[in-house]
Amino acid sequence: MSRKPLIIDCHGHYTTAPQALADWRDRQIAGIQDPAQRPSPSDLRIGDDDLRESIEKNQLRLMRERGSDLTIFSPRASFMAHHIGDFQVSSTWAAICNELCHRVATLFPDEFVMAAMLPQSPGVDPATCIPELEKCVEEYGAVGINLNPDPSGGHWTAPPLSDRSWYPIYEKMVEYDIPAMIHVSTSCNACFHTTGAHYLNADTTAFMQCLTSDLFKDFPTLRFVIPHGGGAAPYHWGRFRGLAQALNKPLLDEHLLNNVFFDTCVYHQPGIDLLTRVIPVKNVLFASEMIGAVRGIDPETGHHFDDTKRYIEAAATLSDADRFQIYEGNARRVYPRLDAALKAKGL
Amino acid sequence: MSRKPLIIDCHGHYTTAPQALADWRDRQIAGIQDPAQRPSPSDLRIGDDDLRESIEKNQLRLMRERGSDLTIFSPRASFMAHHIGDFQVSSTWAAICNELCHRVATLFPDEFVMAAMLPQSPGVDPATCIPELEKCVEEYGAVGINLNPDPSGGHWTAPPLSDRSWYPIYEKMVEYDIPAMIHVSTSCNACFHTTGAHYLNADTTAFMQCLTSDLFKDFPTLRFVIPHGGGAAPYHWGRFRGLAQALNKPLLDEHLLNNVFFDTCVYHQPGIDLLTRVIPVKNVLFASEMIGAVRGIDPETGHHFDDTKRYIEAAATLSDADRFQIYEGNARRVYPRLDAALKAKGL
Repeated sequence: MSRKPLIIDCHGHYTTAPQALADWRDRQIAGIQDPAQRPSPSDLRIGDDDLRESIEKNQLRLMRERGSDLTIFSPRASFMAHHIGDFQVSSTWAAICNELCHRVATLFPDEFVMAAMLPQSPGVDPATCIPELEKCVEEYGAVGINLNPDPSGGHWTAPPLSDRSWYPIYEKMVEYDIPAMIHVSTSCNACFHTTGAHYLNADTTAFMQCLTSDLFKDFPTLRFVIPHGGGAAPYHWGRFRGLAQALNKPLLDEHLLNNVFFDTCVYHQPGIDLLTRVIPVKNVLFASEMIGAVRGIDPETGHHFDDTKRYIEAAATLSDADRFQIYEGNARRVYPRLDAALKAKGL
Repeated sequence: MSRKPLIIDCHGHYTTAPQALADWRDRQIAGIQDPAQRPSPSDLRIGDDDLRESIEKNQLRLMRERGSDLTIFSPRASFMAHHIGDFQVSSTWAAICNELCHRVATLFPDEFVMAAMLPQSPGVDPATCIPELEKCVEEYGAVGINLNPDPSGGHWTAPPLSDRSWYPIYEKMVEYDIPAMIHVSTSCNACFHTTGAHYLNADTTAFMQCLTSDLFKDFPTLRFVIPHGGGAAPYHWGRFRGLAQALNKPLLDEHLLNNVFFDTCVYHQPGIDLLTRVIPVKNVLFASEMIGAVRGIDPETGHHFDDTKRYIEAAATLSDADRFQIYEGNARRVYPRLDAALKAKGL
């Protein structure tokens, strides 16, 4: 531990993909109503130079500026939009998005490793996602997946994550020893702003679904990363401890904290201070979701809101050993396939 | 300010009403399908002694133990259940629940003042709530209302709070100079645990609905109290500042903080420390929601989770003048009818 930690950002999305991707998606959506317009996956042509440029000018530039080393990189969350079309639409779209992330990770093997989106679709059995998941892990080297607890996009028509319909996904996760980040997509409910309400609500909702259930008794090695600092959970940790007690659940340490982890996508110092004060260090994973929901510069600090490494550095309660865990150790433990890939490189 | 503050708890519900109330409600619900079973409001008989006992043994006992003086007291939030039945069902139920709170406030005039629930019903014009609102303010002395942003109970089928359909309520609030606590009721969506997810999500959602809109340009004196410490908002204050900036809104101080207030129903010290560090003191109102969502004793402290006064007392960044505002000053400013009632008593 005397060496400097690798700074692993466990929450990056390909938000800067070339415009051709969005154009193809627009044609795909138009093709739902009008099959004559439906594009073929092979109609999408994005060259390696375009991919390189989209990364080098954006994520990689900021990683270098901010001093992070490696990003777990998945398709753009708000573009997953599982509510659009049927399973076939989602399946084609997920395959395209995952392949692009795989190509980025291949072009930048030291800086990016991929996590997969799933071809979820409202009302469709989650087990239908298994083939894409298998391909991404076995062929693309995905070290984790993003699991959407609300494929309807803000109508919350799917059953809770403790429902047995999700179990085929969990069985495959356990087999591969990969975690899921629980991450919704765009809200198509006018009540919920996507990044200001729906994302955070989903985090809190997923956490509470875990709390009220005994999911991790059925899957003792299943691991969920709750993004955006766990939504409201750490801020209301006393409430959740009290609710668990009222529901005759074990203490949260035992009930959830072998399986549930929180990222550090909390965009101001007091929030990170609370997170690192309340949640055990072993459950906190460094992340920024950079070039994501909040891209501006904080006028109060002069730095980007999503430059979360600054907050971790400044968090007064953390020791260097704590920071090592948050930056590297926890990610290697929660994402064993990442750990194996790093070890294979002598890291 | 040299005197001790009045300790005003702005968030109390009548969670301990005599069993006869729930029994009557069960009959009312049965009567939706079978009109022959439908009870008359006059079938509900609860004597003053029963009311006194339900309060003295519960809220009043705890207020004395914990040292709070006065509670703004409204019908039980989870029992509002606006999703049940039609407007007529909600109307009858709201009238009964409000009358009981009025009677409690009449029996204990020094310790309780009422806030009203509204007879909201999914898909029904909010303007239909005005007569009940008027009665509660003019005849019952209500100093505020509870406004449910999701009468569907977790399906979020109503438009956002910035929609013009809500404006008749706001016009009446401005006329009476009363605030609304934005408070949902029971979730009937299996995804959302009522007190662990739906309540907090609604707080975050309502806050973001205010942020994305220009509601307070139309109603510069309209005031919302966001309960449960503002859901996820203070913890993610940097995110919200950044989103406001990206949306070309003014700074949150100017855009929202003349109109939006947060209560202190956050059930552990680190949460209250964050709330009071991030949110200006003028926007924080003391509250406990006692005998509510979390009724147990925190094994880490030996005190009730919802004994929030202890956290306010221990919050290191607060001065005595700050505590005076949080306990009394802000409530008198946000609830001018409460202030007038106190002044009429020489307080």
